[in-house]
Amino acid sequence: MTQDNQNKTNLFGLGNKNEAFAKYFMCQSYLNGLVNDNQIDVNVSNVTFEPGCRNNWHIHHQGYQLLLVTSGEGWYQEEGHSARALKPGDVVVTHDGVKHWHGAQKDSWFSHVAITKGTPEWLEAVSEDWYQQLGE
Amino acid sequence: MTQDNQNKTNLFGLGNKNEAFAKYFMCQSYLNGLVNDNQIDVNVSNVTFEPGCRNNWHIHHQGYQLLLVTSGEGWYQEEGHSARALKPGDVVVTHDGVKHWHGAQKDSWFSHVAITKGTPEWLEAVSEDWYQQLGE
Repeated sequence: MTQDNQNKTNLFGLGNKNEAFAKYFMCQSYLNGLVNDNQIDVNVSNVTFEPGCRNNWHIHHQGYQLLLVTSGEGWYQEEGHSARALKPGDVVVTHDGVKHWHGAQKDSWFSHVAITKGTPEWLEAVSEDWYQQLGE
Repeated sequence: MTQDNQNKTNLFGLGNKNEAFAKYFMCQSYLNGLVNDNQIDVNVSNVTFEPGCRNNWHIHHQGYQLLLVTSGEGWYQEEGHSARALKPGDVVVTHDGVKHWHGAQKDSWFSHVAITKGTPEWLEAVSEDWYQQLGE
């Protein structure tokens, strides 16, 4: 998916450059906060990845993460499992304590809503060699 | 929005006729469960309303509800407040204990993802006179 098409189909908004988490992402991502309310025990944000961009391996402790894919094509992988290709309408459930990463495919912008509870632990980057061979 | 356009833009799926909750909805709605997992303390579902369809007034106790509008035009109203028109990309936060209803506009199909925690208490239907004058 091109940037132009992504802008048209990114239902929950691009938001701002994701500076706060930049050190945990390879290349540029964008974050649009949707629900951040002290009476609600989950955070809801729309995350957009430029082509080739993905986050580091990470774990949600005392919580979970739910991804609702809204635009573009991406990848999701849990440690010890093969990577899963993602398209709009797909839903991902990451349980407490599960090491995983997610991001765009090499040639596509990618957006998902993330519903997140608990405390993230950020780990190492996804290997470039591993990422580059996905989908080949 | 017509039914044909709704089918094309209903990102998270129509699902099945919403028989379980039919007595709390005026006319036909559809429910597509997205996350219903005993390790996750929220339920995530895509709800689709035919034109004119809305649910009864209701309250989420010991929880909350978050709506992410994906397709069509709808209404959301909390008791004591005016009704808010909803369009794709809109987000609604309903706090614990707040009496509210939501549904389609008279002439449009409408879909939202609902992220729900707690126990619902279903109350009276939205008055037909009130609903019919919305947006006029």
